[in-house]
Amino acid sequence: MKEIYARRRRDLAEWLGANGLPALLVSHPANRFYLSGFELHDPQCNESSGYLVVTPEAEAYLFTDPRYQEAAFEAMGEDNVCIYRADRYRAIAAFLESKGVASAAFEARSIPYFTWKQLSAYLRLEPSSGAVERLRVVKDDQELFRMRASCRINHEVFAELERRLPEMVGLTERRAAWEIEKMFRNRGASELAFTPIVGVGVNGAKPHAELSDEKIREGDTLLVDIGGRYQDYCSDQTRTFWVGGAPSARFTETLELVQEAQRRGVEKVGPGVPVREVHRAAHDVFAKRGAAEMFTHGLGHGVGLETHEAPSVNFSSADVLQPGMILTVEPGLYDPQWSGVRWEHMVCVTEDGAEVL
Amino acid sequence: MKEIYARRRRDLAEWLGANGLPALLVSHPANRFYLSGFELHDPQCNESSGYLVVTPEAEAYLFTDPRYQEAAFEAMGEDNVCIYRADRYRAIAAFLESKGVASAAFEARSIPYFTWKQLSAYLRLEPSSGAVERLRVVKDDQELFRMRASCRINHEVFAELERRLPEMVGLTERRAAWEIEKMFRNRGASELAFTPIVGVGVNGAKPHAELSDEKIREGDTLLVDIGGRYQDYCSDQTRTFWVGGAPSARFTETLELVQEAQRRGVEKVGPGVPVREVHRAAHDVFAKRGAAEMFTHGLGHGVGLETHEAPSVNFSSADVLQPGMILTVEPGLYDPQWSGVRWEHMVCVTEDGAEVL
Repeated sequence: MKEIYARRRRDLAEWLGANGLPALLVSHPANRFYLSGFELHDPQCNESSGYLVVTPEAEAYLFTDPRYQEAAFEAMGEDNVCIYRADRYRAIAAFLESKGVASAAFEARSIPYFTWKQLSAYLRLEPSSGAVERLRVVKDDQELFRMRASCRINHEVFAELERRLPEMVGLTERRAAWEIEKMFRNRGASELAFTPIVGVGVNGAKPHAELSDEKIREGDTLLVDIGGRYQDYCSDQTRTFWVGGAPSARFTETLELVQEAQRRGVEKVGPGVPVREVHRAAHDVFAKRGAAEMFTHGLGHGVGLETHEAPSVNFSSADVLQPGMILTVEPGLYDPQWSGVRWEHMVCVTEDGAEVL
Repeated sequence: MKEIYARRRRDLAEWLGANGLPALLVSHPANRFYLSGFELHDPQCNESSGYLVVTPEAEAYLFTDPRYQEAAFEAMGEDNVCIYRADRYRAIAAFLESKGVASAAFEARSIPYFTWKQLSAYLRLEPSSGAVERLRVVKDDQELFRMRASCRINHEVFAELERRLPEMVGLTERRAAWEIEKMFRNRGASELAFTPIVGVGVNGAKPHAELSDEKIREGDTLLVDIGGRYQDYCSDQTRTFWVGGAPSARFTETLELVQEAQRRGVEKVGPGVPVREVHRAAHDVFAKRGAAEMFTHGLGHGVGLETHEAPSVNFSSADVLQPGMILTVEPGLYDPQWSGVRWEHMVCVTEDGAEVL
């Protein structure tokens, strides 16, 4: 793995050089981990585990507090690690200066204003955006291997869920979510990739439904949007079920329409295709049936070390698909008076088309 | 609950007025939730569920994207909610202007530089820090009730863990952590409050140990630092066990010393006491035995909606204890060549002393 991280840092360094940027101060946890293997998560959103600096010469330094000393030494070697205490901003700048680094670009979307302000007192800083994300968007072979393995677990969980659904009638959404979490964990997932959505009936119409104490019941819909993390990589899939007996005509029609939109979206995926065209392909299916207004979100998003990462799949996307990108294709139709139906797969862009994971 | 949130907003508004501050833009998830009941978590650290603005007149407005519309209407009422799309910064400013708000203070430690920069184009902004945290640091009766309930679950888990420890010999740290997680969840915890530390032998010497595949073994130490979230509130406790048979003399002596330091710390807790004196009380016990260098972190931290919140308990703290504050008291001694021993309780400051939760 160490060689993979070093290669990624060389790719980043090359890009920094080509764009005339100084060293990059990496603070976003998934980016830091991608480049060093150090701490995929911060302990809390307002508490950093540390910062990685990569220079255009592909030198790299890790800054952290004493709690993480051992992990930092292991990841980067003692000479390239600075352990800070209360004086972290001054310490970061002094260490960088000792290495000949007097200015840095920073990740504008992840550094808190406060951190930027404090560091600015010691270091020339300039904002940047997306430098590491543009590397992460294309998965390498090892990542593809892990993404497939992670998604396979997701498929297995859905298979188990469907098999056990009859016995889950009467469980609350909250309790069902816990049963689902155990299905992931029992298969080796280290954690859920995000809070599951388990939406009974009308609750399925909320694109972001909080788990409630509503009970799964026969003769109604059940929307399930779940993902786990396996070997660091996230999965994300959605299915909408009819629970018990024959589905209503409305459910069947809606599901068929959603699945048709999904097929059109997936068919569109391929190298060189503008991302917004994938969204359009699905959207058009709904528009033709006068249902576009009930499709209230983008068609999907990238998945990898994070559940939501580049590219965003919607009309305003300026990205173009490349082999190795992985995105969700998840059209949905929502009627707050009735229910919601969403269907989601993860799709990998290949050399000549797409692979549904 | 709605009355509680409104009361907290009035308290905040009063403080804003008294300090000559304009409306406060609240972006930190736990602060937003504390003041409105809207979304305790952001979906990812780099993705906001929304922003709450509270004016010095105690008016309050919630800004979010369409995914959260229903939850936002429910929390704040439709008239006080602005649903933004791609144009979020412009939309926030325009909505505020329509309500007569032309400038705002913001939470400097939680707003990303990018968000601040974008919003600055439309709104006069000034940095602030700790406005909501200073309210959260003192728990009200409902919070104390929940904190006690949350900590009770933590005690029950430790009791179960101790009972089951003999049968857990041979499990990896990772697997044991999952067993512990199930103990929390089976008792109603909604999630873990933080990634558990389960450190076998020398792994207990890392204050932030990542879970490994090291196995729990007889004749060695096991450090367990765990917490769950129950009714939104976190618990956090540590115990260090000797697994199987008679403990070594070194373990017994170290544990006694750590527990003595903990007792001294807890005894010091009371209203009007400077927080740093609590740290000092424990530190002195170690210093007298020449062990202070092996105590490598602060004595503790506040706990509540977040695992780590104000006050930080260390020598540089300027805080003074007040009734209703809850802090951890968790001295530890670490020898990277041997092991680590830490012992942690949560302590609530009362009118005339302290209550160990």
